[in-house]
Amino acid sequence: MGAKEGAVSPHSREESLCIFGTGDLGRSLGHRLFQSGYRVVYGSRRPDSCGPVPQGVLNHAEAAQSSRIIFLCINREHYSFLQALAPQLNGKVLVDVSNNPEKDMFPEANAVYLQRLLPEAYVVKALNTLSAWGLQNGPSDANRQTFICGDSAEAKQAVSEVCTRLGLLVLDRGGVGASRELEDFPLQLFPMWKLPMRIAVGLSGAFFFYLLIRDVIYTYVYEGKDVSFRILVSLANKVFPIVSLIMLALCYLPGVMAALLQLHRGTKYRRFPDWLDRWMLCRKQMGLVALALASLHVLYTLIIPIRYYVRYRIGAGIISQALKNQTTEFFNILAWRTDSYYSMGVLGFALFILLGITSLPSVSNALSWREFSFIQSKLGYVTLFLCTLHGYLYGWDKFLHLYSYKWYTLPGYMLSLVVPTVVLGLKLLLLLPCVDRRLTRIRRGWEHTPQDPSVQKLLI
Amino acid sequence: MGAKEGAVSPHSREESLCIFGTGDLGRSLGHRLFQSGYRVVYGSRRPDSCGPVPQGVLNHAEAAQSSRIIFLCINREHYSFLQALAPQLNGKVLVDVSNNPEKDMFPEANAVYLQRLLPEAYVVKALNTLSAWGLQNGPSDANRQTFICGDSAEAKQAVSEVCTRLGLLVLDRGGVGASRELEDFPLQLFPMWKLPMRIAVGLSGAFFFYLLIRDVIYTYVYEGKDVSFRILVSLANKVFPIVSLIMLALCYLPGVMAALLQLHRGTKYRRFPDWLDRWMLCRKQMGLVALALASLHVLYTLIIPIRYYVRYRIGAGIISQALKNQTTEFFNILAWRTDSYYSMGVLGFALFILLGITSLPSVSNALSWREFSFIQSKLGYVTLFLCTLHGYLYGWDKFLHLYSYKWYTLPGYMLSLVVPTVVLGLKLLLLLPCVDRRLTRIRRGWEHTPQDPSVQKLLI
Amino acid sequence: MGAKEGAVSPHSREESLCIFGTGDLGRSLGHRLFQSGYRVVYGSRRPDSCGPVPQGVLNHAEAAQSSRIIFLCINREHYSFLQALAPQLNGKVLVDVSNNPEKDMFPEANAVYLQRLLPEAYVVKALNTLSAWGLQNGPSDANRQTFICGDSAEAKQAVSEVCTRLGLLVLDRGGVGASRELEDFPLQLFPMWKLPMRIAVGLSGAFFFYLLIRDVIYTYVYEGKDVSFRILVSLANKVFPIVSLIMLALCYLPGVMAALLQLHRGTKYRRFPDWLDRWMLCRKQMGLVALALASLHVLYTLIIPIRYYVRYRIGAGIISQALKNQTTEFFNILAWRTDSYYSMGVLGFALFILLGITSLPSVSNALSWREFSFIQSKLGYVTLFLCTLHGYLYGWDKFLHLYSYKWYTLPGYMLSLVVPTVVLGLKLLLLLPCVDRRLTRIRRGWEHTPQDPSVQKLLI
Repeated sequence: MGAKEGAVSPHSREESLCIFGTGDLGRSLGHRLFQSGYRVVYGSRRPDSCGPVPQGVLNHAEAAQSSRIIFLCINREHYSFLQALAPQLNGKVLVDVSNNPEKDMFPEANAVYLQRLLPEAYVVKALNTLSAWGLQNGPSDANRQTFICGDSAEAKQAVSEVCTRLGLLVLDRGGVGASRELEDFPLQLFPMWKLPMRIAVGLSGAFFFYLLIRDVIYTYVYEGKDVSFRILVSLANKVFPIVSLIMLALCYLPGVMAALLQLHRGTKYRRFPDWLDRWMLCRKQMGLVALALASLHVLYTLIIPIRYYVRYRIGAGIISQALKNQTTEFFNILAWRTDSYYSMGVLGFALFILLGITSLPSVSNALSWREFSFIQSKLGYVTLFLCTLHGYLYGWDKFLHLYSYKWYTLPGYMLSLVVPTVVLGLKLLLLLPCVDRRLTRIRRGWEHTPQDPSVQKLLI
Repeated sequence: MGAKEGAVSPHSREESLCIFGTGDLGRSLGHRLFQSGYRVVYGSRRPDSCGPVPQGVLNHAEAAQSSRIIFLCINREHYSFLQALAPQLNGKVLVDVSNNPEKDMFPEANAVYLQRLLPEAYVVKALNTLSAWGLQNGPSDANRQTFICGDSAEAKQAVSEVCTRLGLLVLDRGGVGASRELEDFPLQLFPMWKLPMRIAVGLSGAFFFYLLIRDVIYTYVYEGKDVSFRILVSLANKVFPIVSLIMLALCYLPGVMAALLQLHRGTKYRRFPDWLDRWMLCRKQMGLVALALASLHVLYTLIIPIRYYVRYRIGAGIISQALKNQTTEFFNILAWRTDSYYSMGVLGFALFILLGITSLPSVSNALSWREFSFIQSKLGYVTLFLCTLHGYLYGWDKFLHLYSYKWYTLPGYMLSLVVPTVVLGLKLLLLLPCVDRRLTRIRRGWEHTPQDPSVQKLLI
Repeated sequence: MGAKEGAVSPHSREESLCIFGTGDLGRSLGHRLFQSGYRVVYGSRRPDSCGPVPQGVLNHAEAAQSSRIIFLCINREHYSFLQALAPQLNGKVLVDVSNNPEKDMFPEANAVYLQRLLPEAYVVKALNTLSAWGLQNGPSDANRQTFICGDSAEAKQAVSEVCTRLGLLVLDRGGVGASRELEDFPLQLFPMWKLPMRIAVGLSGAFFFYLLIRDVIYTYVYEGKDVSFRILVSLANKVFPIVSLIMLALCYLPGVMAALLQLHRGTKYRRFPDWLDRWMLCRKQMGLVALALASLHVLYTLIIPIRYYVRYRIGAGIISQALKNQTTEFFNILAWRTDSYYSMGVLGFALFILLGITSLPSVSNALSWREFSFIQSKLGYVTLFLCTLHGYLYGWDKFLHLYSYKWYTLPGYMLSLVVPTVVLGLKLLLLLPCVDRRLTRIRRGWEHTPQDPSVQKLLI
């Protein structure tokens, strides 16, 4: 393979590249390569009838001979035609830039299929994660990175050189077997966010209707007052913190459950059930959704004093006192209660923001594993504790008063405290010295029954 | 070229490197290389008279023979002297670390000029993007990355090894032709931010004086009251949201205009006018400036209730009511109006923050193109819609009242709604099925007049 | 070394890798390598008695012959046994994945020690920065990066290929001499944050008790009132801004001191004292702690109007006025004073947030050195100036009133202004044209006494 020798010479700027296919993609790519200083030769089945294309179009066989690297800008359906060109393509670097409109349309990835058709060619998957815009107009901020994979290190090196000259940052993803992952990448739309978003929407909807009944409809039925304006801010400011606290607890529940499972099984070598694995993999997204809801809660809380309703109520209260010529007493205990409740909220939210910042890719990459786990685990539990305490202090002695149980339902804040309380309780259990010791031993590889045949099954 | 063979041997730590030039830069670099375990030899025109430098100074020719890699720490003006050394420098790796005090001082980049002078040497541009501080004291957080370019892959590899040993992260930028970009890099001071900052400053200034006249001077002239204290918070809290909303709309206007242009031309293969291209390239910066102004608006709004003026006015209102022995009625419609206005603001701001977070380099790099465009385009329009609605709800029925038109001028919020309304209207037009279908076809490469010769002109 | 040739062939997926050691780490690693498509052979001292391990276990010598790359999953204490295997290990790539439980347990890094024991082998340090979790379950977000070092470029390339196939992003750190740094990495727990955190905790504690005495105990002693509820919000909201402002000033103090030292010495080539170097290295962390405290100050300030205590006091004030049938006058000067004080706070905080955002790794990496220093230095001083002004405006004429000096102590805000005022004063001094000119010359390499022998000492 001479691609590398070509690169060594200091004056190889006018290297020739070949593109199979004169469709939109082929033309866009050719245009970019031409701008970056390459000569571009097109290969086509019908070189005479493919519209205006620069630098002439040859038939496939002739075009292939002109260059060491061939970009395939044709549909996977037409790959089979390439088999007839095998003699010309052997030893060439074939760059597969294809994508499919849907996942799992074909049993094997396009690049794997191509490599099987032409075992003597060097197939490299590349550039498929870029948008058409990125290919045509040069990389913008969102499109600097491109992934590459293939079985030949030198072929990948040659294609990397081309990508680099196009201004891209190339990330090697290993052998051609990684093509499936690369081909799925442009199709994905926040796959890890689906479960957390569904939980957030589901819980928010449920609590919205629950609180709508308790707060708005109840008042209308029993007091005949229309307080429907409360939906916009007051109700939202109950739904968001409730869902946020539950979801924060749901971030830590699977870790606790995994530990209990390991304790129960006496080994770490058996796989967790699938649902637990999936849950654990989207903890970060779950936490970030919870953080977004918590931030909304903060904003909704901070605008309270400028709301017309609040100003009116406070003003009306003061006037009625003034008219009655009376002054109320200052309750020290009430000051302690509200201030401690706000304090816990502020501190919990500040730590929550810190967790969010450390989950930014560039920040978490700069942390050692020990640092990352210190923040996400230790500080995470402190955050959960502070936010749960914030909820308990908000409730204070409300649970003693009958008016809290309208229509025999529990107030929303009580429901929001169930999951966090369970998670914190279980975590406390796991921190007991005797439990902790056993768990640590298991995580260091110790097994309750080392001769358990299931282990062997897993490893082989 | 033997640079690579040298690196293969496991015990090559005491490799020798040569530096031409004993000035400050040469001494700093030599110091760092020496600390990293290299032997350093200096080359100088007058080796006897160049002050205290470690490990002896030789003349250029002798020094060049001692090592395969030569760092040039001399001014571009003296490059011509190197031609006389061509026999000694042929086949060597010459590292050009130079920068110019200004852009476009010379017709060609320093490294290109050097390569032209010494065509048989392997010129590599490197290290020029580091600060003197970074070179001397080792890389700090801001200086881990260094760019490199050159026509010889192996020469770049050899220089990369040295940079890596200095603790740097090397990013390959392609051939020596990229030197211009690398040489311009240290000179740039937020080039993409200039247009957005100018727009922000211009609009802020204009609206500041406009509102100063309407709010402060008008009151002084007609009511004789000095309300100049309003400049600091009230006026700022009108200027910032107005400019922010306009600039958010200006992020989306060029995209809409480009789509209309493509529809009109019937092809995507003709270049946009230069001003449109430049506008589109700074949309991200425009949006971030708008976000900064929106954040200031939020902060200024949230401090409203702790301002002396606001507290005084509210207190005075309550007292006057109490003294008149009267209570005002609660207006349900007013509660709906203010709460919906605040809600839209909170939700719009939250989405705006989300847009800001996804434009962080490390976050946007982790997104697929489909995800990035979902957030920046779809969610972006939702953000613009919510913020515009926030503005309309703020106005409500104020446009019906004569007092809004002091001195026959429009209130500021009305002016701020013009551009967003136009952008949203045009976007709605583009979403009409018949228009959308045609646009999609054009963006897939379809052309109204495929034989249009201008296409050929562009591509060749 | 044939490792590279192996990679060139397009069908090398079933490459064989060898692992020495059948403990937990060896089994986890083997499991992952097997999943990624490698054949794995284990080497053990007692191949017959090491429990269930896949694909058979051989003795060390036989296992070593099966593969070019050998992962050492054994303790450093057992490295000496490997010397007996020198004939089999010569020319092999030995991957040292070891970590020590503590820093500086041994005089030399594990990988350096190994290379000394086996000078003919190619030792590569790798994978040691990953958590056991990361090795076993594949890379999660926090564990994508792995560092690698070693003296042979080709051995590193071969190991990089394996790591890449495991889904990792490999960062080359240079020669085997960098092993110490790599081995220390997993042990570190925010080393650069220790000094700033200690300063923050120390100052916060000191100011807390100082203000507790002035605000709570004084009131209790002289007025007999229990205002202990003020601890939670009011006191915290004094301690946080005070410590934040002092720490922001402490970020800029070392830079000013370094400049004064360079001016005094007349050269930049002499090292700063160690304490100054250490101080300068943790400025970023110092600033981020200050930013966190400033954010808490903002949150605590914004919840002021919804606190029970504040509402009570305002309501009581209005009622007492209403009952006395009196209205207070509006003081224009008071409106200016509070609004300017809030404005400076808002603007200072907004700039502070901007400083925080640009210190995110991915953002600061995208900036040129000139841009980074513009923000962190110029905008940093503006931030310090605005925040200091915020403090002075808060104080206004309080220093004239006797009640400010309870028990002959200064109020907290006065103490917080000392360091920032000194820093800003010294900076102003350095900006004087005559001083600035001399400093610029020194930083360009000019020396007051160029023949000073201490320079030579430093450089050689």
